[in-house]
Amino acid sequence: MRKRFTLQEYKEGVLSGDRTKLSQSITLAESALESDLGLASDLVQEVLPFTGNSIRIGITGVPGVGKSTFIEAFGQLLVEHGKSVAVLAVDPSSQKSKGSILGDKTRMEKLSSDKRAFIRPSPTGATLGGVSSKTREAMLLCEAAGFDVILIETVGVGQSETAVKGMVDFFLLLMLAGAGDELQGIKKGIMEMADCVVIHKADGENQSNAKRAKSAYKNALHLFPLGQNNWSTPVMTASSLTGEGLSDIWEMIQIYNLQMQSSGFWESNRAEQRLNWLDENLHFLLGKFFLEHQQVQELLSKNRKRVENGERSPLSLARDLISAFFNPKKNDK
Amino acid sequence: MRKRFTLQEYKEGVLSGDRTKLSQSITLAESALESDLGLASDLVQEVLPFTGNSIRIGITGVPGVGKSTFIEAFGQLLVEHGKSVAVLAVDPSSQKSKGSILGDKTRMEKLSSDKRAFIRPSPTGATLGGVSSKTREAMLLCEAAGFDVILIETVGVGQSETAVKGMVDFFLLLMLAGAGDELQGIKKGIMEMADCVVIHKADGENQSNAKRAKSAYKNALHLFPLGQNNWSTPVMTASSLTGEGLSDIWEMIQIYNLQMQSSGFWESNRAEQRLNWLDENLHFLLGKFFLEHQQVQELLSKNRKRVENGERSPLSLARDLISAFFNPKKNDK
Repeated sequence: MRKRFTLQEYKEGVLSGDRTKLSQSITLAESALESDLGLASDLVQEVLPFTGNSIRIGITGVPGVGKSTFIEAFGQLLVEHGKSVAVLAVDPSSQKSKGSILGDKTRMEKLSSDKRAFIRPSPTGATLGGVSSKTREAMLLCEAAGFDVILIETVGVGQSETAVKGMVDFFLLLMLAGAGDELQGIKKGIMEMADCVVIHKADGENQSNAKRAKSAYKNALHLFPLGQNNWSTPVMTASSLTGEGLSDIWEMIQIYNLQMQSSGFWESNRAEQRLNWLDENLHFLLGKFFLEHQQVQELLSKNRKRVENGERSPLSLARDLISAFFNPKKNDK
Repeated sequence: MRKRFTLQEYKEGVLSGDRTKLSQSITLAESALESDLGLASDLVQEVLPFTGNSIRIGITGVPGVGKSTFIEAFGQLLVEHGKSVAVLAVDPSSQKSKGSILGDKTRMEKLSSDKRAFIRPSPTGATLGGVSSKTREAMLLCEAAGFDVILIETVGVGQSETAVKGMVDFFLLLMLAGAGDELQGIKKGIMEMADCVVIHKADGENQSNAKRAKSAYKNALHLFPLGQNNWSTPVMTASSLTGEGLSDIWEMIQIYNLQMQSSGFWESNRAEQRLNWLDENLHFLLGKFFLEHQQVQELLSKNRKRVENGERSPLSLARDLISAFFNPKKNDK
């Protein structure tokens, strides 16, 4: 068993910016042991007053779009601008083969060797519900450790984007230009989540394609409604190879930051995210207790397929399950 | 107190297509009384084998887009094609002033007087969670009563669209043409939910505007990814005044139906919806028990604001709440 420290040791380590302790704290938060979870929960509560001061950026895009090279190049730019950068990944391990690269730190060689950057590989074997709440905790721990910008990577093909959208200030969608390539595999609905669309790999022969794609997306997004933040989603081009466009993106994010701070959306969005996070945790924990209940398990395993087939009414089964959970003796059908 | 019937009486009434009994059954399902809910749940279970044979169509759009006139005209067209039509509304009563018209049957004069049509006004005073599950039950009861097409109306400005999208086979978005009008008030994210976008009120002087809007949206949507159903969202124009375009829409929905039946998406989508419905009911019922718990209420009222403000960690509060719920004695902080 791995060594554990006291709450105070973890807290002091994180607040002093000690990378090793930060890593160990995140590992603690990712643990499945109930005792670890309690300690991690206390730790997050303890460091909470020292969180909230970073810009939280979600980055998504399908495998092949170049997320790792983008994060490597963009992260270096931020470091050059004097910002410290933490990189987290929300990718259930099963999807790794589809292109998640953060498990392999060596693919971000330069950034990972920089003292102002911290790269945290994907947690392994985690379920989505678990990952998203643990990523939130990892994010807060990184903030408490003093990082100015948190980059959270997610593969744009699963369900993790909604989770990430729900924990960041800014959501950036990477796309590729070229006939039909724009659409390759990206999930419906993600476009309307984006606070910015970046046509990536806009270099060499690809440049004119990228410009065409940029203008097409600009026209298209113009027809779409604004969100609560009243922000008109910009479309930009960038190359992580040449570095072109990267500082424009950083500038645009800072403009977004200023606008949202002054409109009050920045804080109201974070407040809403916190309440949603409470809801999610409650649903997750309640659901866990519920599904561990023996009679619930039996009823569910007998009837879930019947609901799926349309033989059993969902509401009727839900009522029986609830009744079995709260009045276990009455129910033994 | 309103008269109640036996399960058998409700069942026979619904299955024989008796409008009065169908109405009474829906009222039963909308009741807040636990005894009514039990009976309604049993009723839905009983009629379940006779459900599933309709085309379920969700219709959304902002107030002023002409949802009621569209449903009136489209419903009549369906009736002329020999189809029986049930119209349901998912609009929390508080939003009625924003333009929900189904509370006022007289605004659909012709359709409501037609024997092959059934119009059910919005339930009053219902919360969203409640409404959506009750609308699902109303839908099943209408199917059991033999209706061929169910039209479910929702105002495209709240959160009910996601609920409606989760219970229909086809989701139709009504929009208006004209400078900027396309965007008036519609919620971000709805565009990508739509299986079809209809530019409404395409008549008189508005026709050329509608055609331009159609072509702009067609180009825009072309840049967006396909959903799981692999269906490329068509953009059409229609006028409920002249009737132009309405039969094209019906034809297109039938093509969708055929394609999705043969690809298997029709059934897999419904199966997924049933399981989601089970999940929603469980969350709703579990949450209800949970929030009625005295210690949970106390803890929550003391700490909810602190979570919102960022003073209290959501996970830490969630853990305390769960602990108070399951081990009430241990916890009295």
